[in-house]
Amino acid sequence: MKVGIVTVSDRASRGEYEDRGGPAIEEYLAEVLESPHSTAYRVISDEQALIESTLVELCDQEDCALIVTTGGTGPAIRDVTPEATIAVIDKEMPGFGELMRTVSLRAVPTAILSRQTAGIRGKALIVNLPGQPKAIAECLDAVFPAIPYCLELLGHAYPETECARWQAFRPKR
Amino acid sequence: MKVGIVTVSDRASRGEYEDRGGPAIEEYLAEVLESPHSTAYRVISDEQALIESTLVELCDQEDCALIVTTGGTGPAIRDVTPEATIAVIDKEMPGFGELMRTVSLRAVPTAILSRQTAGIRGKALIVNLPGQPKAIAECLDAVFPAIPYCLELLGHAYPETECARWQAFRPKR
Amino acid sequence: MKVGIVTVSDRASRGEYEDRGGPAIEEYLAEVLESPHSTAYRVISDEQALIESTLVELCDQEDCALIVTTGGTGPAIRDVTPEATIAVIDKEMPGFGELMRTVSLRAVPTAILSRQTAGIRGKALIVNLPGQPKAIAECLDAVFPAIPYCLELLGHAYPETECARWQAFRPKR
Repeated sequence: MKVGIVTVSDRASRGEYEDRGGPAIEEYLAEVLESPHSTAYRVISDEQALIESTLVELCDQEDCALIVTTGGTGPAIRDVTPEATIAVIDKEMPGFGELMRTVSLRAVPTAILSRQTAGIRGKALIVNLPGQPKAIAECLDAVFPAIPYCLELLGHAYPETECARWQAFRPKR
Repeated sequence: MKVGIVTVSDRASRGEYEDRGGPAIEEYLAEVLESPHSTAYRVISDEQALIESTLVELCDQEDCALIVTTGGTGPAIRDVTPEATIAVIDKEMPGFGELMRTVSLRAVPTAILSRQTAGIRGKALIVNLPGQPKAIAECLDAVFPAIPYCLELLGHAYPETECARWQAFRPKR
Repeated sequence: MKVGIVTVSDRASRGEYEDRGGPAIEEYLAEVLESPHSTAYRVISDEQALIESTLVELCDQEDCALIVTTGGTGPAIRDVTPEATIAVIDKEMPGFGELMRTVSLRAVPTAILSRQTAGIRGKALIVNLPGQPKAIAECLDAVFPAIPYCLELLGHAYPETECARWQAFRPKR
């Protein structure tokens, strides 16, 4: 299984700022994913067209089963990751954003400013995460238990996971 | 009052699988609706154009006040019930899907994969339910207390309900 | 800082009904906003084109940093405030509507009928509130802790607030 990781940040893409979101996602995956997997990692600026073409490339050329973005989900003028995501997906999955905001709200009231969403393009699941490394693990803990079964429904082999904090759910047939 | 029930399932529509969602909805309505009502029941395949034309027929020709669908709300390629619903409604009602996912999440983490929504077409309320019979009652228990008042706001007679688990709410004028 | 307050109500705009939503918002702002502010107050009918042009004028001509609407968020045929809002914003902020519905659900099950949303137009934050004065304070208490930081992210001076029931949150840099 291949996983795409996309850090969306003007400053990180110019090297003015060390990307901490992408590595936080890579570490998380290394911790919880038992099945062998490779990652494709991109650091790009907050340009909607570039985010869209990066997501399309990771889905259509790189055959990623799962693509996780970090950054660009806030209200500021340069924050356009959700718009880019919605532009390239076939189906939106509103439950991911709802649950991540609900979980982040327990920590900070500004969680409602995060516009993150998720969706399906072809056989790939794309999930937006917030930019803060601390919020990344919190959000992944909330939604990851549903991801293996989602990938199976999309036609991929069921990825095995192991985590002390949660257990993936797979309905009995 | 007329209620439309639409089971969306390739296998059930081909007779390969007994529809259990539609009958579960019929039983639920028979249990809770005190006001006289009739039902129009359809079992159709997961074809977006067919789901749309069925919803339009039940609204515009059959004059259903309420239309409940079951099935086709997941992430798989053939799951297009929310898209068909959004295509035929005048107004989306995001609170229905949000609440149903919140309630289903207490049972299974994969509840976030359900993309169900609700909306208004003319004077009809259309509500998507998940496909699993167990989840159907759970979701209806969550949203039904708001349905009688919604139908009244849409210009229908207020339907009386009786249920041990919940009470419909009607604001005082 | 300038705040726009828009009451959307056919009856209030014709003078058949005293507007209580707009004054409830003004009182709320007077209570919690420590920074000096002025308000622009409009009472208009439930006409989508008029709601849109009023929101545009308050954003683009009046330079309001925050615009709060009340009314027109239900399922009835004349309720079109969310549609007018979505038509004029650059970015939708789904977390506002989700949280307000969650909070209102603790009081009444019909909270799921409220279709309110929020979004950004240029440098202005537009937030829909329900029509009931009681629900207005409840909803503002839920979302206001995130508003000062949101306005700062949009390029405004950070507005100081003081309230016994909540504290605004501003992440450390």
